[in-house]
Amino acid sequence: MDIATFFGVVSGFSLVLLAIKMGGGLLWFWNAPSAMIVMGGTIAVTLINYPISDVLSVVKVLKNAFLYQVPQPTAIVPEIVELSKIARREGILALEKQAKKMKEAYLNKGVELAVDGMEPDAIRGILENELIFTEDRHKKGAEIFTIMGTYAPAMGMIGTLIGLVQMLMVMDDPKNIGPAMAVALITTFYGSLLANLLFLPIAGKLKVRRDDETKYKELIIEGIAAIQLGDNPRVVEQKLHTYLSPSERALIPKKQTEQ
Amino acid sequence: MDIATFFGVVSGFSLVLLAIKMGGGLLWFWNAPSAMIVMGGTIAVTLINYPISDVLSVVKVLKNAFLYQVPQPTAIVPEIVELSKIARREGILALEKQAKKMKEAYLNKGVELAVDGMEPDAIRGILENELIFTEDRHKKGAEIFTIMGTYAPAMGMIGTLIGLVQMLMVMDDPKNIGPAMAVALITTFYGSLLANLLFLPIAGKLKVRRDDETKYKELIIEGIAAIQLGDNPRVVEQKLHTYLSPSERALIPKKQTEQ
Amino acid sequence: MDIATFFGVVSGFSLVLLAIKMGGGLLWFWNAPSAMIVMGGTIAVTLINYPISDVLSVVKVLKNAFLYQVPQPTAIVPEIVELSKIARREGILALEKQAKKMKEAYLNKGVELAVDGMEPDAIRGILENELIFTEDRHKKGAEIFTIMGTYAPAMGMIGTLIGLVQMLMVMDDPKNIGPAMAVALITTFYGSLLANLLFLPIAGKLKVRRDDETKYKELIIEGIAAIQLGDNPRVVEQKLHTYLSPSERALIPKKQTEQ
Amino acid sequence: MDIATFFGVVSGFSLVLLAIKMGGGLLWFWNAPSAMIVMGGTIAVTLINYPISDVLSVVKVLKNAFLYQVPQPTAIVPEIVELSKIARREGILALEKQAKKMKEAYLNKGVELAVDGMEPDAIRGILENELIFTEDRHKKGAEIFTIMGTYAPAMGMIGTLIGLVQMLMVMDDPKNIGPAMAVALITTFYGSLLANLLFLPIAGKLKVRRDDETKYKELIIEGIAAIQLGDNPRVVEQKLHTYLSPSERALIPKKQTEQ
Amino acid sequence: MDIATFFGVVSGFSLVLLAIKMGGGLLWFWNAPSAMIVMGGTIAVTLINYPISDVLSVVKVLKNAFLYQVPQPTAIVPEIVELSKIARREGILALEKQAKKMKEAYLNKGVELAVDGMEPDAIRGILENELIFTEDRHKKGAEIFTIMGTYAPAMGMIGTLIGLVQMLMVMDDPKNIGPAMAVALITTFYGSLLANLLFLPIAGKLKVRRDDETKYKELIIEGIAAIQLGDNPRVVEQKLHTYLSPSERALIPKKQTEQ
Repeated sequence: MDIATFFGVVSGFSLVLLAIKMGGGLLWFWNAPSAMIVMGGTIAVTLINYPISDVLSVVKVLKNAFLYQVPQPTAIVPEIVELSKIARREGILALEKQAKKMKEAYLNKGVELAVDGMEPDAIRGILENELIFTEDRHKKGAEIFTIMGTYAPAMGMIGTLIGLVQMLMVMDDPKNIGPAMAVALITTFYGSLLANLLFLPIAGKLKVRRDDETKYKELIIEGIAAIQLGDNPRVVEQKLHTYLSPSERALIPKKQTEQ
Repeated sequence: MDIATFFGVVSGFSLVLLAIKMGGGLLWFWNAPSAMIVMGGTIAVTLINYPISDVLSVVKVLKNAFLYQVPQPTAIVPEIVELSKIARREGILALEKQAKKMKEAYLNKGVELAVDGMEPDAIRGILENELIFTEDRHKKGAEIFTIMGTYAPAMGMIGTLIGLVQMLMVMDDPKNIGPAMAVALITTFYGSLLANLLFLPIAGKLKVRRDDETKYKELIIEGIAAIQLGDNPRVVEQKLHTYLSPSERALIPKKQTEQ
Repeated sequence: MDIATFFGVVSGFSLVLLAIKMGGGLLWFWNAPSAMIVMGGTIAVTLINYPISDVLSVVKVLKNAFLYQVPQPTAIVPEIVELSKIARREGILALEKQAKKMKEAYLNKGVELAVDGMEPDAIRGILENELIFTEDRHKKGAEIFTIMGTYAPAMGMIGTLIGLVQMLMVMDDPKNIGPAMAVALITTFYGSLLANLLFLPIAGKLKVRRDDETKYKELIIEGIAAIQLGDNPRVVEQKLHTYLSPSERALIPKKQTEQ
Repeated sequence: MDIATFFGVVSGFSLVLLAIKMGGGLLWFWNAPSAMIVMGGTIAVTLINYPISDVLSVVKVLKNAFLYQVPQPTAIVPEIVELSKIARREGILALEKQAKKMKEAYLNKGVELAVDGMEPDAIRGILENELIFTEDRHKKGAEIFTIMGTYAPAMGMIGTLIGLVQMLMVMDDPKNIGPAMAVALITTFYGSLLANLLFLPIAGKLKVRRDDETKYKELIIEGIAAIQLGDNPRVVEQKLHTYLSPSERALIPKKQTEQ
Repeated sequence: MDIATFFGVVSGFSLVLLAIKMGGGLLWFWNAPSAMIVMGGTIAVTLINYPISDVLSVVKVLKNAFLYQVPQPTAIVPEIVELSKIARREGILALEKQAKKMKEAYLNKGVELAVDGMEPDAIRGILENELIFTEDRHKKGAEIFTIMGTYAPAMGMIGTLIGLVQMLMVMDDPKNIGPAMAVALITTFYGSLLANLLFLPIAGKLKVRRDDETKYKELIIEGIAAIQLGDNPRVVEQKLHTYLSPSERALIPKKQTEQ
């Protein structure tokens, strides 16, 4: 997933640079006050809009968007079905040994609570609450980028208005109007570029990832509930398969027969 | 349904080409850097916004929008009523034989679960969960086209800003301003055309299809629940008819008497 | 209600024509390619966005918006109160005779189901389901007009862009720029006019009508439930009056004393 | 509250007139066809969008926005607490005498239903239903002004397009372009002024009033439920205080000790 | 948190002033009628849109946005866990002594109601209702700033339209057009600046703070419910930890061992 993000950003900016290069010099599109207003202004406004701790967490969020991969639900379904077989054969306490081997922390937590003998409803409550607050934290990351994608073009427009007023105030020779207006437009260009090629699509990606992770964790909650109910492993499998697309389901049976 | 989509796309673009032809040459409206920024940029941004697997699935989604037809609820109602008659007469196990003849996979799955003796609530849970996740996958197709329809005009505007800055930087003779500005506007034209004549209406069609399919599957869920309840076939029919429009209902009785 | 719709459309377009007349000739505002792009393009895009059966149903919807009148809840309340009196006095089966005399099909259906001895919850389920799907069908009518009201200005803008590019490509004499630009603007004018004076307000009216009809049918559902519960007619009246505005309530007592 | 509405409208328009006066003559900003299109067009479109009875009710709604004052919850809390004391001491029937003295019709209705011996759930049902439909009627008032605030600028733009086309059609001398374009812009100015200085903020005020009234009535529903439950007056007070802001709560104790 | 708000506002406006300074004189950007229309008009419209008491409360809200700090949930979790230990060891009445020492008024209220022997559901009802109405009051603060951020650019546009009309009416010499148009644009600049650098981000901050406070109070409600249920302190801790982010959780254990 990180490759798509990375490739998209690089190719998007390359296309813009190429188009600039084809029609004239790159330097025409560099203007320090414009960059200052759009980037500085967007950061300033984000600091008014969000607590500083939230803004700093953006760096971590950004790293996540490039590096971290949401685990595939296809990997966890056979593991849960296997747990349900053990629980049915040897009782739920037998899962204690399994819990230590698990890589997925969320599944591990749920299984440990079940082994501890907590009621199914209480476990579901704790796991869902954790899911909701994890979602909330991820949502804030997407929100901050959306806000930056909203303010960047606004800052661009403010910068262009400043440039236009300055140009019009000293307008005497129509010949000079061209370059001055070009400079004024560059601020709008910066704001539009940052918003549409960076902030908004990254906010979109963070939202998609959050949805994928939520679906993944809901599958685990459902699986633990089914194990506690003592469901037949075949029923467990059928319940969990509803969380998968037909193509994902096609991937699983092979693995299952290997076990 | 595919004919309407196909006819709409062809006639929409033909109208635009005709209007261009009536006012001058077609070549005036071809500009390689503009096409590069709008199409390349939209694809790049979509790759930032969505995992690569989702973007690739767009091709399949697009094929669906042109070819696949959502089945008519009028065809499935008499089939379910017939099943309810058999279930009432010979017991629910008698449906096993029927299940093998069914063309509709979703109905088949529900009937098989009922024959297996699963509880009505559990069956409804599994079928509804499957429906929700199928909806989610279809929703993503519509979302990707909506996102493309949002970014295409933004890319168009970025391209036009680049063209305007380049034009203004070298503006010396007002006579030359015309063609240069025309070229700058073409990028906005491309973005607007792609968004309004292709991406957004296709997203709309995918959404309409999803709603139709959801309604169709909810009808099946309701029907299976009624069969399990052992409802009188007349009551089953009355329940399912609420999912149909008056004109759809008018189509059914004839078929029923034929059976 | 149809008079308001009709009067609004006629007076709106008359005002625009008058304003055009006051400032010059009507013919200045006629341009065939513009009309072709805006009207043809909007129809083409609507065909991409909706199945052909939905688009054709627009004609019926449009006729409804002009001709059909949502029945007044003030007329149905005394009828339901009267039914509750009969049901309390002579039993619910006594309503069978009344059912035949009813003009309101929806009330008739509910009463017949009650006479058939169906459970209150089942009747409410059937009637509410029918209400939901009726709403869905009406909502689609409003949606199609909203979509047309969204695409018409977009088509207008596309047409104007075409006109501007054609004008700028051959711009040599600033004197000729006026009429060419006027023609380009006419496409935007058409799109804006159709959207704001026709498509969007008709979508609004369809939505208002749907809300009125929903409220009317919810009143009937409530009334049938109260009759089945064997509520005191005074309580039935009090329950139904909550659906009426004070001014509507003021209209009823007179009628009641007449009966 | 009416003073704020009145003062806001007067001072807003005064500021605009003052700014016009400072830069030239008032008459520059009067244009009959512009006023005709914006005002006439907005009314025509509102008539297409809403049934004539709803549009006429706007006058009443407007009078309300200026004159009627939503009652303060601080006044009703001690009254309900007092009722709960009487009901606990002398039984709920003792409230019959109190009911006659009440100024608040909604509280009166609830108390009378309670004295009549209706079940708490049924009373809550009737009161909440009445609240919902009162809200619906008020919401429609706010909606009509919002719609007018949406169409007024659209009509302004249509008028400006007409003016621009007429100006461009006869453009021969650049010197004449100024005043003609000024006149064209006046229509946009009218639409923007009406929407932002009148229609939209009045819609906002109607919405705020509706929310205040809803909160006030929910407090009464809660209070009557608590009285019927036979709650300790101290508990009743505590329940109702949750509906008040800290500053509103600070106003009550004094009154209470006076009683 | 207040430092981020303060720093953001100061640095945002400094950047804008710097950019103005770099391109000419500061005085070019001062225009009294523009300031009058944007600021006066926004205040006038806000007075139409909101009751005067709500508008006055904005000052208090603004002070809050700069000064008040939402308490950290990490501080309250160990306190609630400690209370649950005492309640389990010595009974819930033993919390009366603790209640007096509490700094957090909301927790104090809940504990006192529990000590009074009120039912868990009733306490949750009172606390949640108080939470809802506190949220409502805070939401209004954010709404007023959002409304101001919506009307300020609209007022800016109205002012610019006035300036343009006045300029066009007397346009004779193209040389004079520059400064007049610059002055007209300044009103748009003011409106955009106030909205994007002040009103909208402050509305955003108020919304973020409200969410943080809601989460904090929901944690307290959950904690009091767990204490009343007589939950094992370890379970209480586990329940409350779901409200914290992993990094917040990492901060707590150390404190706990100190106790």
